[in-house]
Amino acid sequence: MSKPYVVGIDIGGTNTVFGLVDARGHVVASDSIKTQKHVNFDEYIADLHEGLSRLIKAKDAEDLIQGIGIGAPNANYYTGEIQNCVNLPWGPIVPLAEKVSKAFNGIPVAITNDANAAALGEMTYGAARGMKDFIMITLGTGVGSGIVINGQLVYGSDGFAGELGHVIMKRNNGRVCGCGRTGCLEAYCSATGVARSAREFLEVRTEPSLLRNLHIEDITSKDVYDAAMAGDQLAKDIFKYTGEILGEAFADMVAFSSPQAIILFGGLAKSGDLLLKPLKETFEKSLMPIFRGKTQIILSELKESDAAVLGASALGWEARYRYEAPHLEKLEDSKQ
Amino acid sequence: MSKPYVVGIDIGGTNTVFGLVDARGHVVASDSIKTQKHVNFDEYIADLHEGLSRLIKAKDAEDLIQGIGIGAPNANYYTGEIQNCVNLPWGPIVPLAEKVSKAFNGIPVAITNDANAAALGEMTYGAARGMKDFIMITLGTGVGSGIVINGQLVYGSDGFAGELGHVIMKRNNGRVCGCGRTGCLEAYCSATGVARSAREFLEVRTEPSLLRNLHIEDITSKDVYDAAMAGDQLAKDIFKYTGEILGEAFADMVAFSSPQAIILFGGLAKSGDLLLKPLKETFEKSLMPIFRGKTQIILSELKESDAAVLGASALGWEARYRYEAPHLEKLEDSKQ
Repeated sequence: MSKPYVVGIDIGGTNTVFGLVDARGHVVASDSIKTQKHVNFDEYIADLHEGLSRLIKAKDAEDLIQGIGIGAPNANYYTGEIQNCVNLPWGPIVPLAEKVSKAFNGIPVAITNDANAAALGEMTYGAARGMKDFIMITLGTGVGSGIVINGQLVYGSDGFAGELGHVIMKRNNGRVCGCGRTGCLEAYCSATGVARSAREFLEVRTEPSLLRNLHIEDITSKDVYDAAMAGDQLAKDIFKYTGEILGEAFADMVAFSSPQAIILFGGLAKSGDLLLKPLKETFEKSLMPIFRGKTQIILSELKESDAAVLGASALGWEARYRYEAPHLEKLEDSKQ
Repeated sequence: MSKPYVVGIDIGGTNTVFGLVDARGHVVASDSIKTQKHVNFDEYIADLHEGLSRLIKAKDAEDLIQGIGIGAPNANYYTGEIQNCVNLPWGPIVPLAEKVSKAFNGIPVAITNDANAAALGEMTYGAARGMKDFIMITLGTGVGSGIVINGQLVYGSDGFAGELGHVIMKRNNGRVCGCGRTGCLEAYCSATGVARSAREFLEVRTEPSLLRNLHIEDITSKDVYDAAMAGDQLAKDIFKYTGEILGEAFADMVAFSSPQAIILFGGLAKSGDLLLKPLKETFEKSLMPIFRGKTQIILSELKESDAAVLGASALGWEARYRYEAPHLEKLEDSKQ
């Protein structure tokens, strides 16, 4: 019989947020610690253990935790490790699942990246309930993705499948991307991509724009949004440009897995029709005829403040990895 | 207990090939009929039934058939129908699984498109045995694909997932594709795509080439291959161009599902290093760094003459749809 709670932990570059979640997707308690406070990973784990234990104790939930799910950058579902993550200070290979399960006396732990966690959260508690085939696209600082096929998250042969922010949208003269290549979707359609588009548009075009009142290097996607909402045509055109590239990218994704829906999450996804109207128009026009009119483009139904913890927690329900003390195993071996 | 044989049927625009296949993937008997001989679908089924029954009887296998798998263009796995296929004469919706199961007294039938069948064949009998995540790419008149994730063929929400021949490789000024759009992979990297490249290269470039001895409209991919093998530089460059586009397309596919292998099948796949060398070089270079050195590009291990029947037959082992005479169902209903 499954226990009534799971723990969700979202490890970001700045904060680590964690919460206790019930089966209906309510975050019954949550807290956070600073991710980068400890360069030593064991000290970070001790800090996390202390904060989370306090939370669990306050809810009298010590024996009521089914599992712990963790969303973290470059987290490998298969190995339980964070691998080669440049935004975290703990070295190239971090045995995250093992250390967390050990700290909590063997509670099962599962880890994956944040976009995959978001997809699981949406499937378990949000807009994708009941869907077996959908794609989650997170439009934040970068563009992330979590792909669900036949009701299962797609991890691929190495645990890193679902990097749809890094399909190539401009094969010639594309923008440099953080991944080291050029022309990736993320270089155009993330919050930073929108800011880059603003700089490009302001340089190439000559018309007046509210954005010209700002220092060009400081412009953010939020500035572009505010200007567009104030009626600024150049700012609106930047959203149109962004939406059209997303629409074209989504059409290629449908040729791959023909999902029931593509679900948008993250700051940029809240731009409303500024983004969604050109996105949906270009999407339908770009689809192979056989797929037209089938795939919905919808917004996440998870509250943004809860989403990261909820997504991670969804993984906790089916967590399987469980730390077992090595000498106990040896004792059992010797009994056989 | 499963029975020792399955039947594989491959319905092509010209011929319908069918065979009796054992569990080790041997085609123990096969034959064919002309697909377009009958404009009436029931007459086509009667013809197919007659030919296949003769085959089964000759092997004394009447009661030894586990299921029938069928590969056909636009075949929908979920509905058992061929839907809106312009290359077959039987109308917009053809209830293929029902009619075949009915003709064979309720033997279970499953259908899918030919590229999906090829992927299943490869997984059951060929180069993908033991693989849980791979992509089959068929390089024939068109470019088809069958995607396997977590050991399951990807059908998508509508049964038509896996149209990777129709991802867009040229977003501006792309070639017109048979699907009605422009710039699709298939317009460049199929046999007809190679022939189109030859015409383009011959018009744009001025150097001598063996291909200039041929009537430009009649050049086939085979002509380009023969010229390249004879040392013709322009013909070699056409294969390089084709391989590079495939390599770039494959890199985007890896960002989606991170497969263990991409398996090539079909006439063009037999072009050897002419195609594979530029393909593999461009593929590795185009991959997101996290995926480099992980995904193999390999050739199908199925004999081409058997592959279509073997692929279709692989679906027969797990066929579930079974025709039941309506009045029998009613009798059972009335008993309740």
